[in-house]
Amino acid sequence: MSAIILDGKAVAKTMQAELDAAVAEFRARTGVTPTIAVVRAGEDPASVWYANAIQKTMAARGMVAQLHVLPETATQEELVALVTRLNAQPDVHGIMIQEPMPKGIDEAAVKAALSPSKDVDGVHEVNAGRLAMAAPVGRPAGVGPFFVPATPAGGMELMRRYGVEFNGKHAVVVGRSNIVGKPMALLLMRENATVTVCHSRTANLPDICRQADILCAAVGRAEMIRGDWIQPGAVVVDFGVNDVGGKMVGDVAYAEAVEVAGMITPVPGGTGPMTNIMLCLNLLEAAKRQTG
Amino acid sequence: MSAIILDGKAVAKTMQAELDAAVAEFRARTGVTPTIAVVRAGEDPASVWYANAIQKTMAARGMVAQLHVLPETATQEELVALVTRLNAQPDVHGIMIQEPMPKGIDEAAVKAALSPSKDVDGVHEVNAGRLAMAAPVGRPAGVGPFFVPATPAGGMELMRRYGVEFNGKHAVVVGRSNIVGKPMALLLMRENATVTVCHSRTANLPDICRQADILCAAVGRAEMIRGDWIQPGAVVVDFGVNDVGGKMVGDVAYAEAVEVAGMITPVPGGTGPMTNIMLCLNLLEAAKRQTG
Repeated sequence: MSAIILDGKAVAKTMQAELDAAVAEFRARTGVTPTIAVVRAGEDPASVWYANAIQKTMAARGMVAQLHVLPETATQEELVALVTRLNAQPDVHGIMIQEPMPKGIDEAAVKAALSPSKDVDGVHEVNAGRLAMAAPVGRPAGVGPFFVPATPAGGMELMRRYGVEFNGKHAVVVGRSNIVGKPMALLLMRENATVTVCHSRTANLPDICRQADILCAAVGRAEMIRGDWIQPGAVVVDFGVNDVGGKMVGDVAYAEAVEVAGMITPVPGGTGPMTNIMLCLNLLEAAKRQTG
Repeated sequence: MSAIILDGKAVAKTMQAELDAAVAEFRARTGVTPTIAVVRAGEDPASVWYANAIQKTMAARGMVAQLHVLPETATQEELVALVTRLNAQPDVHGIMIQEPMPKGIDEAAVKAALSPSKDVDGVHEVNAGRLAMAAPVGRPAGVGPFFVPATPAGGMELMRRYGVEFNGKHAVVVGRSNIVGKPMALLLMRENATVTVCHSRTANLPDICRQADILCAAVGRAEMIRGDWIQPGAVVVDFGVNDVGGKMVGDVAYAEAVEVAGMITPVPGGTGPMTNIMLCLNLLEAAKRQTG
């Protein structure tokens, strides 16, 4: 039997329409256009490509992405000064700092210079701390408002739109990065899932994966997770983006997994399109909070 | 066969001697006495008792605990003003805000007013965020210096002193509080354990516990975890402090568990004494960082 496809492209399209209406309403009511500043030092090709993609995405949604590019020779002080200036600009509602930053720059220090209320990418330590400390969904959060990195937020929203139950389910997250694995684990925990975080040092990874009602892969190794690692009927969310001979391949062996899983994200067209739309939602939310 | 007892009382005593030497050296070198301010509003009996205990503990270690007590009628603004004043005082190196705060006060807002560098109790969102984002131990941390809540830090140190291996082990943490369960999970993850976080909504809790090489209990329910939930030879760390008819009892059914586990903390005398000593260590560390 073949799994239900978690069609991120289709869901993102639906969400785009919802977002477009919300942006139009916000602009009409306030006269403000939600604006993100994308900050970069140097010309890392992937960063250049991504910055341009963000600019197109935002424009298509009635919002603006400004690019702020410093030379490769920029110092940490110059980056921090730029971020500090953007923090103070009322017409900039979100700031994203692209990585990698040039060698010798303390990336943590530059990110810490961000205003948490403009950190729509969810990389600031205050936003990470609030997510880590937030109470389960449905109770008073116990922390101030915060932003969640767009990729795990998108994975959660995609599951929600397909009616996936989290409460009491066993979720296994493979990968413990700060932009996907760990925030994903915390988001699942907030939804009352039992959560196991696995990584490169995990023993018996296939056995642990087989326990998952919800299996999330964010390791960056093409097709590492095989079909026989998946519990029949499980929900499989693949965050992997691996280039295999020019073809984009996930962390899950899709052809095998689709025969076992109950629901599965394709790659491409699963979690990827959700990331973009969640970043847009974060920006609109930031603009709303700042415009009052 | 009976388990090795993780004797927190004995380890804390050893650590006290080490700490006393370090405090004496610091005081002789700098002329500075590490000082913590304990802030409270109202006279909650447990808080009063704990503040006095901290004062005695610090005095015994050659350090100082100042008590700053506001009336039960204190407003949020008054609490924040007191914390702000203490943040600025160079002779105060650590600040602990006791809970519960009086009704109507936004505890998160008061805690957020703390200077992260004086938050020796590890409750500030910046410290929680840095712990959440910190790289595995042995690699560059990727975040600024931070403080970890004393209770989970003490559990980790107790295991370390008995030579417990974390790398690749499966650790199960029962409980997801901000002061024990979640930070404990993150600390174990940093040590390359595979970590499962369970809680009140977890299905098949006994089965999951039985997988644990390291089982940490922080739920606050007397003897909830039974002997047959424990994998033979597992390390059992009990953070529970439950009053059962005037007797202090852990979250683990000790008499059963001690026959199955490889190592186990008693209650009392296990994780409790470690908490005190870790708070002292955090205060000395804060004083060192601030004294340069």
